[in-house]
Amino acid sequence: MIQNPDIPVSVESRPLVETVPVSLPAASLSDNTADLDRLARELGRMGFAPTRIAPGRMDEAVRKMRREGPSFRAVLGYAGTHWEILDLVSSSPEAGAVFGFALDLGSTTLVLRLIDIGRGKILNQATVANPQVKWGEDILSRIVFARNRESLSVLRSALMDACSKAMKKMLEDCAVPASSLHAVSCAGNTAMSHFFWGLDPSNICREPYIPAANSFPTVYASELGFDFLPAALLYLFPNVGSYVGGDIMAGIVAAGLNRSAQPQMLIDVGTNAEVVLGNNEWLLACAGAAGPALEGGVVERGMQAAPGAIDRVRINRQTLEPDLRILGGLKAAGICGSGLIELVAEMFSSKILTIQGKFSTEVDCPRFRQTTDGKAYALALSSQSVDGGEILVSEIDIGVFLKSKAAMYTILSIICRKVGLDFADLEDIYIAGNFGNHIDPEMAVRIGMIPDLPLDKYHGIGNSSLSGASMLLCDRGLLSEIEMIRNRITYVELNVNVELMNEFRGALFIPHTDPGLFPSVRLP
Amino acid sequence: MIQNPDIPVSVESRPLVETVPVSLPAASLSDNTADLDRLARELGRMGFAPTRIAPGRMDEAVRKMRREGPSFRAVLGYAGTHWEILDLVSSSPEAGAVFGFALDLGSTTLVLRLIDIGRGKILNQATVANPQVKWGEDILSRIVFARNRESLSVLRSALMDACSKAMKKMLEDCAVPASSLHAVSCAGNTAMSHFFWGLDPSNICREPYIPAANSFPTVYASELGFDFLPAALLYLFPNVGSYVGGDIMAGIVAAGLNRSAQPQMLIDVGTNAEVVLGNNEWLLACAGAAGPALEGGVVERGMQAAPGAIDRVRINRQTLEPDLRILGGLKAAGICGSGLIELVAEMFSSKILTIQGKFSTEVDCPRFRQTTDGKAYALALSSQSVDGGEILVSEIDIGVFLKSKAAMYTILSIICRKVGLDFADLEDIYIAGNFGNHIDPEMAVRIGMIPDLPLDKYHGIGNSSLSGASMLLCDRGLLSEIEMIRNRITYVELNVNVELMNEFRGALFIPHTDPGLFPSVRLP
Repeated sequence: MIQNPDIPVSVESRPLVETVPVSLPAASLSDNTADLDRLARELGRMGFAPTRIAPGRMDEAVRKMRREGPSFRAVLGYAGTHWEILDLVSSSPEAGAVFGFALDLGSTTLVLRLIDIGRGKILNQATVANPQVKWGEDILSRIVFARNRESLSVLRSALMDACSKAMKKMLEDCAVPASSLHAVSCAGNTAMSHFFWGLDPSNICREPYIPAANSFPTVYASELGFDFLPAALLYLFPNVGSYVGGDIMAGIVAAGLNRSAQPQMLIDVGTNAEVVLGNNEWLLACAGAAGPALEGGVVERGMQAAPGAIDRVRINRQTLEPDLRILGGLKAAGICGSGLIELVAEMFSSKILTIQGKFSTEVDCPRFRQTTDGKAYALALSSQSVDGGEILVSEIDIGVFLKSKAAMYTILSIICRKVGLDFADLEDIYIAGNFGNHIDPEMAVRIGMIPDLPLDKYHGIGNSSLSGASMLLCDRGLLSEIEMIRNRITYVELNVNVELMNEFRGALFIPHTDPGLFPSVRLP
Repeated sequence: MIQNPDIPVSVESRPLVETVPVSLPAASLSDNTADLDRLARELGRMGFAPTRIAPGRMDEAVRKMRREGPSFRAVLGYAGTHWEILDLVSSSPEAGAVFGFALDLGSTTLVLRLIDIGRGKILNQATVANPQVKWGEDILSRIVFARNRESLSVLRSALMDACSKAMKKMLEDCAVPASSLHAVSCAGNTAMSHFFWGLDPSNICREPYIPAANSFPTVYASELGFDFLPAALLYLFPNVGSYVGGDIMAGIVAAGLNRSAQPQMLIDVGTNAEVVLGNNEWLLACAGAAGPALEGGVVERGMQAAPGAIDRVRINRQTLEPDLRILGGLKAAGICGSGLIELVAEMFSSKILTIQGKFSTEVDCPRFRQTTDGKAYALALSSQSVDGGEILVSEIDIGVFLKSKAAMYTILSIICRKVGLDFADLEDIYIAGNFGNHIDPEMAVRIGMIPDLPLDKYHGIGNSSLSGASMLLCDRGLLSEIEMIRNRITYVELNVNVELMNEFRGALFIPHTDPGLFPSVRLP
């Protein structure tokens, strides 16, 4: 039982790694079973069976058994079908704390957590840039780059080195010996999982989009190259398909979609928007290119939600002047996804934008500018910006953004329609990612990006990939839940067809061509 | 089904490694499971489940799948609880032959066989000296030498290097690529198994004689250091206890004791004499120091059954001159175990020896010599010997030998009595080892070493450790049989007590103090 854990697992949950006290009956001429066989027999009696011990670790285990005498503690890692004997430690109370790493293998950033598994406590967290960016900002160019073995190996080494370096530093900072680190739980999208495991990713982006592998065996971390972790098992969350990866699988676990009696939804906005709909009986996943603009990636002055990003916008209905919140600093460098949502929502409510997403010709706004690219809105003045120039958002930018928001709404509509559900049937909607933490659902509803539902149904859950990976460390029951999710989930390929295009065209408007879909949105 | 195999397995037996043709349905948007998951699914449909693939071999497998197209063959290694996907090969008929090694890890010699697993054919066999002899002729001194990690590692490396070198040469000689070598089946006594696996052997010879491990997981051969065999699983026969090792386990399999409805017996004479008694319901094993003299190890001019050894002796009842058979050459170097048995039997029948094993004072034998060590018998004359001197067998030698034969008979008596059986209840008696191939049961009965039973009950079965290891390659069903044997076998510690000593003292006579036990032996 885990008391007051940082990781949101139930009190009944059992950790992935257990340290169990063992008292072996003394060996004698009449009970002369071999040391390791006696250990396995005793552990079996205690409910830990079958057990396995790596060939290279057997001699060490025997020597420890003989040194410790009849009473010691066995560190056992759960591997689904068996228990791996990871170490034997003294029976003294201070020995036997076990630690684990949770890794979110993001395309842009790697987030790592050092966790005290037995207490469910987060000891340290680090975020490092994914060094693979050097070979391609977006994952697609990396997939293309890694088309032969040598370049795949280059990308893999960069990733593994960055992970190793960060993990070593975290262990050092927290004075945790590498020998006490017994589990590494990792989640990433399908391409990142392929890079991590050293698998040819080239078919991920080629119809019919067949990954090399969706599921990965539990292995020793050292087998993948983490030689500094000799006694750690490594778990990589399985993928559902090329466009729904282990990160989403971890997100489902973190949100608990698979445990809910009522249908719930998980929305993860990254380069793609990945959406999962389901409950404890069925799960449906799909992915679509809704993301870039929402993450601030395509708009001219768009940027990630990082220091310098405008993430909140309020426009004075009278003066039409904006009031900005700039992340982390005084000067603005650009605008992030949630800032864009608020900007468009506020421009729409202030009648600066028409329902079609064009700048109104009927209002006289002091922030309108005429540029070579057409009309623009000066979101930040020269005095407010890092580079001393105005931060402009053009009509083209707005158009690009509206395509993303329309794509998002369309995906949500289609996936619900696939199973004959109305949005109103959804009990909860989880929005993952940095984006999910910054977004104001009221604003997103106002522009017709997400369904017009009671706002308390929306929950920003942050990095759900990291959360899911962390939870697995503290709740081994999730290993079979993940297997169940894998068997239960259906991946829906969103074919571009007439229905989808009609849906999409309606959603390009603010909030929609059918205002009945957004009854709470007061048209200006 | 294996046609006319060299290895004595039944026609229904299924090999340890299978090459199965796979035809994968084409991937599509509606069946977009990942390559390796589709492969596992298809293999599962064919009855091979669960499957596993080593992390380091996954990428290669995916590339081969993509190269070969929908039809290819999967090389699957049986690992008891799952199938290991060892390789994928072309579906052309010439591809996919699978090979294996059987290794008998003897204390003195290593015997290796290269086997075509699918056809059950022996392609090559090699015998090399165990290089560990350098650190101790007998296994006990090696155990003492290996008491720390470094010296254990020295002994282990010598063993592994010798095995590697021999295996590489055999592959080369038979033009078998190492990539087609998919299984290594090994058996050795408990100490040799410990050296092989790199386990501290020191408790094997210390009461209560607890080995480090009796059972060993199925691993990749490369995990134990055979890097030149990247796609081979390695199986090491489990031990029963410190004095009954995997070699005896393999011997039980080779003799088929565990399948017999009637009780049978297996006798293996090496440094120790190991004896197993049992049938398809129960098995009893014990070991005793009966061996050295029988193997020719203690007697002054004793030697192994190798070129130069006298292995057959007939003494002319009139002249009392011996007629010798010398192995492999014209000149004699010494006498081996079976030669000793015949010598003693013939000396007894010729009245040269008394029932107490002393040289008779009543016969006048031209071969009697008087030495500083007492009376001796000149078995070979100067003209017959390699070194130009007579080969003498002294009364002391005879005494040492009789202790061994008495120990052997005592062990056989005691183990039968443990389960309330008479010797007459035994259906068959298998005598393993080089010794078993050379021994003439009639002679052994005449001196009271083995029970006085119909001679057709005795079967010399040669190197049963190598046979059992070979059989496993061609009959995976033996893997569970071995497990059953392990669970069913009881190791009996022969405590030195009054009963045993009385038994032993009677057996020191020729053939025994109780001639009723040897009714067929005509007293001279």
